[in-house]
Amino acid sequence: MEIVSSVNELREKIMTWKKQGRKTGFVPTMGYLHEGHLSLVRESKRRSGVTVVSIFVNPKQFGPAEDYKVYPRDLERDRALLQREGVDLIFYPPVEVMYPEGYKTYVEVEDLQDRLCGKSRPGHFRGVCTVVLKLFNLVQPDEAYFGWKDAQQVIILRKMVEDLNLPVKIVPLPLVRDHDGLALSSRNTYLSPDERRAALVLKKSLDLAERLILDGEKDAHKVREKMIELIAAEPLARIDYVEVVNLNNLEPVEKLEGEALIALAVIIGRTRLIDNLRITSGGIEK
Amino acid sequence: MEIVSSVNELREKIMTWKKQGRKTGFVPTMGYLHEGHLSLVRESKRRSGVTVVSIFVNPKQFGPAEDYKVYPRDLERDRALLQREGVDLIFYPPVEVMYPEGYKTYVEVEDLQDRLCGKSRPGHFRGVCTVVLKLFNLVQPDEAYFGWKDAQQVIILRKMVEDLNLPVKIVPLPLVRDHDGLALSSRNTYLSPDERRAALVLKKSLDLAERLILDGEKDAHKVREKMIELIAAEPLARIDYVEVVNLNNLEPVEKLEGEALIALAVIIGRTRLIDNLRITSGGIEK
Repeated sequence: MEIVSSVNELREKIMTWKKQGRKTGFVPTMGYLHEGHLSLVRESKRRSGVTVVSIFVNPKQFGPAEDYKVYPRDLERDRALLQREGVDLIFYPPVEVMYPEGYKTYVEVEDLQDRLCGKSRPGHFRGVCTVVLKLFNLVQPDEAYFGWKDAQQVIILRKMVEDLNLPVKIVPLPLVRDHDGLALSSRNTYLSPDERRAALVLKKSLDLAERLILDGEKDAHKVREKMIELIAAEPLARIDYVEVVNLNNLEPVEKLEGEALIALAVIIGRTRLIDNLRITSGGIEK
Repeated sequence: MEIVSSVNELREKIMTWKKQGRKTGFVPTMGYLHEGHLSLVRESKRRSGVTVVSIFVNPKQFGPAEDYKVYPRDLERDRALLQREGVDLIFYPPVEVMYPEGYKTYVEVEDLQDRLCGKSRPGHFRGVCTVVLKLFNLVQPDEAYFGWKDAQQVIILRKMVEDLNLPVKIVPLPLVRDHDGLALSSRNTYLSPDERRAALVLKKSLDLAERLILDGEKDAHKVREKMIELIAAEPLARIDYVEVVNLNNLEPVEKLEGEALIALAVIIGRTRLIDNLRITSGGIEK
């Protein structure tokens, strides 16, 4: 496994593999890897001839008051984990390689970027789309793997790929949870023991939603209210949003029939956590 | 020579050529071709194994009060011209193939897009960048050819390619003029005989600038004033802008030393025409 930090080194490796006709799988990450990331890596290994993982904490997707500076980083740990999984290449660029002085180009997916997390994190998805497009152009993967944990991100990137005619397939994979049900996130490391217990309220509210839906509840408003009620009873939790939306265009839905996304963001102490549940023709996934 | 209108047909052809390892040259156009376009096609033919030309009048780069609907179109004429040049493929997509219902994704090059033509044509370069990025993703060319006629477009697209790490090289080629000096443009067809004569004032003002500079004038302000004076004396002409700017960042320059761009837009009757002169280490080009 190689670690490269420069665009030229990366391009050289990619070109060699392209010429060999090897299918490239790509897992873009911000590092501080957990089992969620590793599940993406394993699927890429299973489906591709070559697996590339990028580790880059992207400043453009953090707001000025957000946690860019303190976002957890541990390259040595990440390297060991990816080595064990048999990853072929880690792309680990410094910020000035991705955004040299005078950088000016941005990609936006209108409307979708302003909903759900976009409301409280303006500019976030613009930053995500821009860095992912850059990474796609550099790595030129056949497939790129993302977790349903970040459902809005998956939906926006899928739209970007479709709209821009990018020759890459977005492969979303199931959210991975800890033994107690908490959705894995690099940000879970911010939680104190009390907060960690309180954070389970996200998953509990989704469990409640699932039960209501399985019992036949079709009124999205009622499901949402019950979830909010449950979360409000947790003193350490402050709701950012709880929404029931269309799984493609993220517009609020009134009636639960067909595909839908129930997504929520809750601030526990000072840590903003997200979780979601998807209703598809295949059933309820969370 | 084939004409294809669908993304799938195009992708199939491109894939075949890629597998054969043929270098692809690409000339994106809005059709109604003139010698300016054909000079790009010839350079692509000279440098590439395969030459693809797109013909697409891009609605996203026209403002609501602009000439999208009346922009000249003549596919049969264009087809004959490109056939004669030995072009391999014309991509001629309908609008709904490029922008299906619900299209939402846009690319912007901040700052550069707001200068010169961007001031009077808000959204124009956003539309240009978006369609060119889409076409690059579809055609996957090694090189793409653009005329210096649209100097700001060249500078913005070069920046987009650099910022987004696109694996394509922008090749700008000299502006082509008619026998009387008027810069070739599909929009020249809008001009009445009187307007056509008046339109020569753009080139004349650049000739004047060149003479002043060759005579040692270093004050950008003075050069600009003389040009404006000359154009103002033409009753059919109305100045949109005359600017002397840095050739890379398009910021106004005070002193003419090193590289610079003198660009102007003038409305003749109801037709907006542009022209420019570039000062580089190689001398003055116009």
